[in-house]
Amino acid sequence: MRSPTKSHGRLSIKPTKKPSELMVDRPILAQVWTARVITLFPQSFPGVLSASVTGKALEERLWQIETTDLRQFGIGKHRNVDDTPAGGGAGMVLRADVMGAAIDHTMKGINRADWPLVYLSPRGASFTQSKAQEWSQKQGITLICGRFEGLDQRVIDHFDIEKVSLGDFVMTGGEIAAQAMIDATVRLLPGVLGNAESAEEESFAHGLLEHPQYTRPTDWNDHEIPEVLLSGNHKAIGDWRRDQSEALTKSRRPDLWRKHKKS
Amino acid sequence: MRSPTKSHGRLSIKPTKKPSELMVDRPILAQVWTARVITLFPQSFPGVLSASVTGKALEERLWQIETTDLRQFGIGKHRNVDDTPAGGGAGMVLRADVMGAAIDHTMKGINRADWPLVYLSPRGASFTQSKAQEWSQKQGITLICGRFEGLDQRVIDHFDIEKVSLGDFVMTGGEIAAQAMIDATVRLLPGVLGNAESAEEESFAHGLLEHPQYTRPTDWNDHEIPEVLLSGNHKAIGDWRRDQSEALTKSRRPDLWRKHKKS
Repeated sequence: MRSPTKSHGRLSIKPTKKPSELMVDRPILAQVWTARVITLFPQSFPGVLSASVTGKALEERLWQIETTDLRQFGIGKHRNVDDTPAGGGAGMVLRADVMGAAIDHTMKGINRADWPLVYLSPRGASFTQSKAQEWSQKQGITLICGRFEGLDQRVIDHFDIEKVSLGDFVMTGGEIAAQAMIDATVRLLPGVLGNAESAEEESFAHGLLEHPQYTRPTDWNDHEIPEVLLSGNHKAIGDWRRDQSEALTKSRRPDLWRKHKKS
Repeated sequence: MRSPTKSHGRLSIKPTKKPSELMVDRPILAQVWTARVITLFPQSFPGVLSASVTGKALEERLWQIETTDLRQFGIGKHRNVDDTPAGGGAGMVLRADVMGAAIDHTMKGINRADWPLVYLSPRGASFTQSKAQEWSQKQGITLICGRFEGLDQRVIDHFDIEKVSLGDFVMTGGEIAAQAMIDATVRLLPGVLGNAESAEEESFAHGLLEHPQYTRPTDWNDHEIPEVLLSGNHKAIGDWRRDQSEALTKSRRPDLWRKHKKS
């Protein structure tokens, strides 16, 4: 039995070889939305998430992040995590036995019904605002970051892992995608966005792109703020903004517009 | 005139109040693909990009990153960068004069034809693999990270800024989106992916999702590797992989499949 270690976001946990004791060790954690990340680069977390609104919320214990270092589950002296693809071809594939052990460790004691297990892959379904909303209602989420050519398909099948893609592009690994999805989810947790921000009026909240925004100075480089916004007429301002949102969505994102009209 | 400062990724530049001298000061930079990022969180860069393949390439000077600290262009003692939205509403909007000054500073001496100026916004066009390919052919790119409710529309209009969205979801800021787009672009630069990786056989390269991958051990938890991959018959392996790619794309991403059939 290898002795896996975990690095933790903020709360320090006593290392133990009996993972079941971890749950006893952290009663606070059970109440707080938690992101667990399986990665070869645990030092990359929380990364940008420690800045600004998400960072403040992390300090205030409104959410937490824990990493599982995949390397700790590697094979042999060099703790290898990958091997050449069966059938040949370029690149390396993450081993089923290595990832399987990391997943067993990370998901110990977790109720899957309230805790999605997700592999970040361009082959997955696209991440959307509704997915962020769904995840923010759960107790937590485990994100598996790929590297190289991908993950042995048998692990994905065996654990019935949800595959989610950040978009139609390829990255060197899943770490940045994990941070993007955590950011989008955490900002929807109660108390994370203060009065100064709003999760209500923004793009996608109503299936439309957000209207343009303006602020002081009123005159900048001979560009003026649209007169209606300075009128004080709240009805007219609301109408203008809705018209702008609809026009923007129609012209730039006809796909969103069609969905909006259907709903 | 405020005296803006810049933080640089790797190469240290002598500070100067005459931005035109910067171009004389860094002849090496002109040959290397460069990401410039305008952000309130310059310390978040290079972040995850300093790990793994992109980090190795950064050390080898195959690309470089520079940040412009938006705060340095803020107004008054507190260097305010934002104000309330014209017409009312929740949140704060980044000021046109502040961002305008930061853009002037960052784009000084740059040929826009060979250097896209991009605002990361959920209202933009979706970032895709072909956009990463387009950007990797340029000399560099400037990414503007938003925060709060967004950026004064007049700046976007005045500089004719390209708006690009990471996807149909909302994040607390543009920093993670910038890292995602830089990662996807940098890995396409010559020399960044070694022999061990391949940008050829992956998802989206041919408009299809990638086939499943397998590696050792051959038998894991009673799950076996598909027999054809162990046959040594390269023709059969190639056929199997293409069939898998097509079936996956058809079932999971009918939109991609329709595009693929048309092309």
